[in-house]
Amino acid sequence: MSSLLIKNASQLATLSSTIKGARKKEEMSELNVIEDGAIYIVDGRIEAVGLSKELVPKYEAEADEVVDATDCLVTPGLVDAHTHVVFGGSRANEFERRLQGATYMEIMNEGGGIHATTRMTREATEDELFEQTKRRLDSFLTHGVTTVESKSGYGMNWETELKQLRVMQRLQKEHPIDLVPTFMGAHAVPEEYKGKEDEFVEHIINDMLPIVAEEKLAKFNDVFCEKGVFTPEQSERILEAGKEYGLIPKIHADEIEAYGGAELAAKVKAISAEHLLKASDQGIKDMAEAGVIACLLPATALFLREEAAEGRKMIDEGVAVAISTDNNPGSSPTTSMPLVMNLACITMRLTPAEALTAATYNGACAIGMEDEVGSLEVGKKGDIVMWDVATYQELQYLFGVNHVVSVWKEGNQIV
Amino acid sequence: MSSLLIKNASQLATLSSTIKGARKKEEMSELNVIEDGAIYIVDGRIEAVGLSKELVPKYEAEADEVVDATDCLVTPGLVDAHTHVVFGGSRANEFERRLQGATYMEIMNEGGGIHATTRMTREATEDELFEQTKRRLDSFLTHGVTTVESKSGYGMNWETELKQLRVMQRLQKEHPIDLVPTFMGAHAVPEEYKGKEDEFVEHIINDMLPIVAEEKLAKFNDVFCEKGVFTPEQSERILEAGKEYGLIPKIHADEIEAYGGAELAAKVKAISAEHLLKASDQGIKDMAEAGVIACLLPATALFLREEAAEGRKMIDEGVAVAISTDNNPGSSPTTSMPLVMNLACITMRLTPAEALTAATYNGACAIGMEDEVGSLEVGKKGDIVMWDVATYQELQYLFGVNHVVSVWKEGNQIV
Ligand SMILES: [Zn+2]
Ligand SMILES: [Zn+2]
Repeated sequence: MSSLLIKNASQLATLSSTIKGARKKEEMSELNVIEDGAIYIVDGRIEAVGLSKELVPKYEAEADEVVDATDCLVTPGLVDAHTHVVFGGSRANEFERRLQGATYMEIMNEGGGIHATTRMTREATEDELFEQTKRRLDSFLTHGVTTVESKSGYGMNWETELKQLRVMQRLQKEHPIDLVPTFMGAHAVPEEYKGKEDEFVEHIINDMLPIVAEEKLAKFNDVFCEKGVFTPEQSERILEAGKEYGLIPKIHADEIEAYGGAELAAKVKAISAEHLLKASDQGIKDMAEAGVIACLLPATALFLREEAAEGRKMIDEGVAVAISTDNNPGSSPTTSMPLVMNLACITMRLTPAEALTAATYNGACAIGMEDEVGSLEVGKKGDIVMWDVATYQELQYLFGVNHVVSVWKEGNQIV
Repeated sequence: MSSLLIKNASQLATLSSTIKGARKKEEMSELNVIEDGAIYIVDGRIEAVGLSKELVPKYEAEADEVVDATDCLVTPGLVDAHTHVVFGGSRANEFERRLQGATYMEIMNEGGGIHATTRMTREATEDELFEQTKRRLDSFLTHGVTTVESKSGYGMNWETELKQLRVMQRLQKEHPIDLVPTFMGAHAVPEEYKGKEDEFVEHIINDMLPIVAEEKLAKFNDVFCEKGVFTPEQSERILEAGKEYGLIPKIHADEIEAYGGAELAAKVKAISAEHLLKASDQGIKDMAEAGVIACLLPATALFLREEAAEGRKMIDEGVAVAISTDNNPGSSPTTSMPLVMNLACITMRLTPAEALTAATYNGACAIGMEDEVGSLEVGKKGDIVMWDVATYQELQYLFGVNHVVSVWKEGNQIV
């Protein structure tokens, strides 16, 4: 048995609630903050949460470790519900070439773009892919993230898909971060299927999904529904087929133009829809009604110089909002959820409280992990972050800075 | 005598050059990178810069300390040439109130806005102001910044101006960061001078500038030239009067609208003009011709949701560009120059090399410090940053993350 007491937090933002499911509207502002708060963890699980003056007399003597969080904010570990973190290589040179004025076609002719990542992901051995991804997950940890969703989809062939999913399985076992896997065979149309997209859809449905399900390689099934990639009809077929195998639908929707993605997310009852930069008013209404979580990615919008999604409006319309890094080599090479929270406030007009809910409890809901993580409640995992700011408001206001002091994963100090 | 050898840097970006003065056009891309580089510092000054295979045999045996920078980028310490870092209090609650939908007038009626900072700066004792600023400068250091310019201007009265300037003097002595002071009595028009702005201008010129000069409280004289604040004519009088006392002109120009600020900067031969979001084409041409450095503040633009300044265009037109945090409680509460470099690439289309030049050598030029800092050359201060990325491209590409591993100020390891 091992136990940890964290005491004297200027604010302990518990995110606790009696409400079930993802939080909407004013629920997203209820952080349930305890001033001068304390939390007690036994064998990796939360045993008690409350005022320091209550918990200290009760637990301090028996605790194996006592941490003084004076002047610090304490929150649940952050949850990043949307990443493509398993990939090979870097595209830093391409970033430079673009800024030097190279056109999209020049980049492509130099072997850049998504094809570069496909090539480098194919070429990497499983061990290399594991090591590169591990380094990124270490960076996530230092930024307060203790749970990460991860999608396949860079291989464009079955062999590489499997390699990505196996790397995730290994990381889930060997890395402190909880990694939640998503199959995304429908990330793009491979070169050899151009013009016969429906055949590729059949290939995913008939050949890939059964194996993913049988080998329990993924919990979610995601599709890139966008003009020129997969149509809403093709996306629906893939997502419905996945449901037959117990894979929960997610959908990359309306990133580049309004294409009925949000509406489709509601129709297939996806757990979440992603991006949504161009989601229609009807789509937003449909999502609110169907209880689909909007997983918004403001760092991607910044990196691509796009207007961020209408997070403020979505919350006001009753959609539960989560936020994520979208970590990937092409459109969001960041590993900082703190920056994503800051951007949610600055570019999407979420309040500091809403941004924290979106990065913790609602993120957990977007990957079906809310019974384990996302709030500081008795019985849940002891995934905790201590920040060198006194309030959750300052966490968002003093932007662009990683305020993490310490991170505990199931009660073990990792950072 | 004490000596330090840093060796095996994957890239040592020296920023060295035979060109005098701030760098323009393609000069901004010439980082003079040494692969597998090393640098040797003796008694706080750079003694040698070169290949590891040259410096290691020569200096390793005699060095008091040897640091292995394998797989790491090494650069000069960053220079933040524009901050308002000396101020009292926090406006995190106001940030939250704005996002909760409070109007500008409601915030003002609640005692918020610039008046809140004036009040808190006036109320703070010199020691309190020192401690609060020190904490911010510590954060600058952890983000790789070793030289910071700092402006007065929050007091709106002479007593508080003096307090701010004295805090800067103390910090310059007691804090590892080099602090370069700017007098900015003309930051805003105090309440009691509304409608008689010219009287306030006279007050600055006749009462304040002589004392600032006599007590050597500042090196620069800065004015907020903007419609409703100080006109170009008033600004010119203040800046010309400062020149008589040896104070070098700087100017907050064309932030909110094109108001002739860039043109005025050229006319008075200011060392730099700041913000420039709305600078006219003529103003940009004038600055290029007069050799005025554009000090651009992309984090402020982000925080205020404004289009960033046209950094790309300014460089192409021959203006030397520097970049800064603009650290201040109202429009840029960040302390992260790494984020500012990332934003310079993402939102202003600077290349990774240009962003690094803007944050080091050109920043040093904007505060007349280029003979001491801003590049790694023999005889200059040993102000050095080691980053956990292998290349300067990755420093900008892996955005939103503070990649600092270690920081040396005059050869002493501070971070
Ligand atoms: Zn994605
Ligand atoms: Zn300023």
